[in-house]
Amino acid sequence: MNLKEIKPRLLMGPGPSDVDPRVLEAMSRPTIGHLDPQFLSVLNEIRDMLQQVFQTNNRLTLAVSGSGSAGMETCVVNLIEPADEMLVCINGVFGQRMKDVAERAGAEVTAIERPWGEVFTADEVAVALQEQGPFKVVGIVHAETSTGAAQPIAPISEVVHQSGALLLVDTVTSLAGMEVDVDGWQIDACYSGTQKCLSCPPGLAPVTFSPAAVKAIDERKAKVQSWYLDVTMVRAYWSAERLYHHTAPINMNYALHEALRIVLEEGLEARWQRHALHHRGLKAGLEAIGVRHLADPNHQLPMLNAVAAPEGVDEAEVRKRLLDEFNIEIGAGLGQFKGKAWRIGLMGESATERHVTSVLTALETVLVERGILRETGRAVAAAREVYSS
Amino acid sequence: MNLKEIKPRLLMGPGPSDVDPRVLEAMSRPTIGHLDPQFLSVLNEIRDMLQQVFQTNNRLTLAVSGSGSAGMETCVVNLIEPADEMLVCINGVFGQRMKDVAERAGAEVTAIERPWGEVFTADEVAVALQEQGPFKVVGIVHAETSTGAAQPIAPISEVVHQSGALLLVDTVTSLAGMEVDVDGWQIDACYSGTQKCLSCPPGLAPVTFSPAAVKAIDERKAKVQSWYLDVTMVRAYWSAERLYHHTAPINMNYALHEALRIVLEEGLEARWQRHALHHRGLKAGLEAIGVRHLADPNHQLPMLNAVAAPEGVDEAEVRKRLLDEFNIEIGAGLGQFKGKAWRIGLMGESATERHVTSVLTALETVLVERGILRETGRAVAAAREVYSS
Repeated sequence: MNLKEIKPRLLMGPGPSDVDPRVLEAMSRPTIGHLDPQFLSVLNEIRDMLQQVFQTNNRLTLAVSGSGSAGMETCVVNLIEPADEMLVCINGVFGQRMKDVAERAGAEVTAIERPWGEVFTADEVAVALQEQGPFKVVGIVHAETSTGAAQPIAPISEVVHQSGALLLVDTVTSLAGMEVDVDGWQIDACYSGTQKCLSCPPGLAPVTFSPAAVKAIDERKAKVQSWYLDVTMVRAYWSAERLYHHTAPINMNYALHEALRIVLEEGLEARWQRHALHHRGLKAGLEAIGVRHLADPNHQLPMLNAVAAPEGVDEAEVRKRLLDEFNIEIGAGLGQFKGKAWRIGLMGESATERHVTSVLTALETVLVERGILRETGRAVAAAREVYSS
Repeated sequence: MNLKEIKPRLLMGPGPSDVDPRVLEAMSRPTIGHLDPQFLSVLNEIRDMLQQVFQTNNRLTLAVSGSGSAGMETCVVNLIEPADEMLVCINGVFGQRMKDVAERAGAEVTAIERPWGEVFTADEVAVALQEQGPFKVVGIVHAETSTGAAQPIAPISEVVHQSGALLLVDTVTSLAGMEVDVDGWQIDACYSGTQKCLSCPPGLAPVTFSPAAVKAIDERKAKVQSWYLDVTMVRAYWSAERLYHHTAPINMNYALHEALRIVLEEGLEARWQRHALHHRGLKAGLEAIGVRHLADPNHQLPMLNAVAAPEGVDEAEVRKRLLDEFNIEIGAGLGQFKGKAWRIGLMGESATERHVTSVLTALETVLVERGILRETGRAVAAAREVYSS
């Protein structure tokens, strides 16, 4: 494979999303040492910018050297010691994954479940806390990438903290694409990924820990089971001590630095509104051709649109045609939705009118050929109405 | 920090090493999806090239999405189940780290030690195997980056396999800079890093597992404690199944692909000889000014030269001057050697005559100013003699 011949795509799956050329250019700057004062300045600025994007003053805010799933594992293994009680709220693949990660860390996990596409009420969580608690940690997914459901966090946080537990939240897909207010919502541990609404290549996982979470970590009796993800050591590298732990991925951090600058140049509010706008455009277009969203209509993520593939359509074949003929990547359904759904991402640089109209045009074209639709044009027209109103 | 203003350095520490512009250019190619057939071709080619560089036919050969330490943890946590017996050979920081990682994985660790800078004989390991065994896994470091010692692996492998144990070897610093023969030496699990003699930015950890190691993994009773590093799942993504596990670092894999192509274009033998040559050049130069290597003279790594800082010299201040005034990065001593040693790397693109003469010139200049040497020129002259002979 000649890398120079790689065909660019419109990345409209569940991540990675399209990357601004400024970020790719930053990533190709000369590699320097992980203890070089120049690089340490880059890390300091990444921490400052992550604090702004997470909306937190948490000092323990940094980018883990791994993907979003490494961020999940970092949060879990640092908070959990063997036999600690943890409540995990599951309404999709990533809640299930959190349970698996927690069990591997030795947690006694209690799981509560909601049907896929739905979200949890504070009451449901409160009942579990009361009847099955106490728990040290409650884990929940803000943006369930497998279903497109947006979980309100603030009301959950209230009942979790009333019970004395720590709140762990997955914001892999939501961060920088909709409101994430770590301090306002009193989240104790939060992780994300770079390849979603931050529009940076995959490879780093922003995480942040509240003072209460840091206290829990400091009071651990057992060592963190993962050496690589042990924040008691990683933080000594990110702090003024600059103790060597592992060699940080230098150029990936350049990329994140530039991606965060772009996010803050746009402004968080403007960025959330942009994601919301293009979600409305896409949704109007899809509704016009009878393609419906799978998540609760009151709790739909803007950046991840899980929709039912129309009856009688081979969803995999449609995705393949979009990729091969239109250079558009959309995602497959995961888990319960496998073979039944498409997941259309509008994340970061991929949340534009061009992306929305391109994917709608491509889908209409293919569905007309399959005899599912009679003519093209209605979806794009419906989307354009949103943009012109 | 404006990334465009980052001053390039001559990277002559313990890694990262200098990166070929071709690799930086590859890394800045458009990000595509982790399930895009184009990217899957890239992964297949990475596996094929890693097999060549590791000199193995092991099918389970891949790049872990983390630094070299993540590679170490991957090997340990996949082979070890709670209460498994493991022997770790320690003669520097990275052997110690392996013990720590193994204990966190629940292993019953027996450690044998050699003074820093020395290596283990097969007899010493055989005695430990006999008197303190049996062990499921024996871990040892091929290239101890903290001391510059090169551990012969083949004789150790023989006694380890006679005992029925699996052999786990750290080749983070050696791979592609000196002979590493995974199949010939019958290594069962082996990990490396990208930022040493592969001359790729840090962020990925090549690993390979022998059929015997795979069997041990397949026969595990407990789940691998790390979800992120669980090769039973990661391999399903790297295999024809292409099951989604985590989002691979796309652009980092581009970089590794190009770095491996460069390694194989040069040829492994030629590359090892180049590292050996510049090691001789550097060593001759340093000896000419009385700076001595710390590792056993019969077991010195070519690519990592740990040397004693001359008496009366503030080693940190010299490193700082090399960095600030000469744009040359060399490494500090670690652990027992902290404050007493420099670690001069000649890895991959940093193993050239220009690097050798540049660091010698810079060191001489600073040592003359400090009154340690009377005049400059002797070190470079001694190095040049090696090159002209």
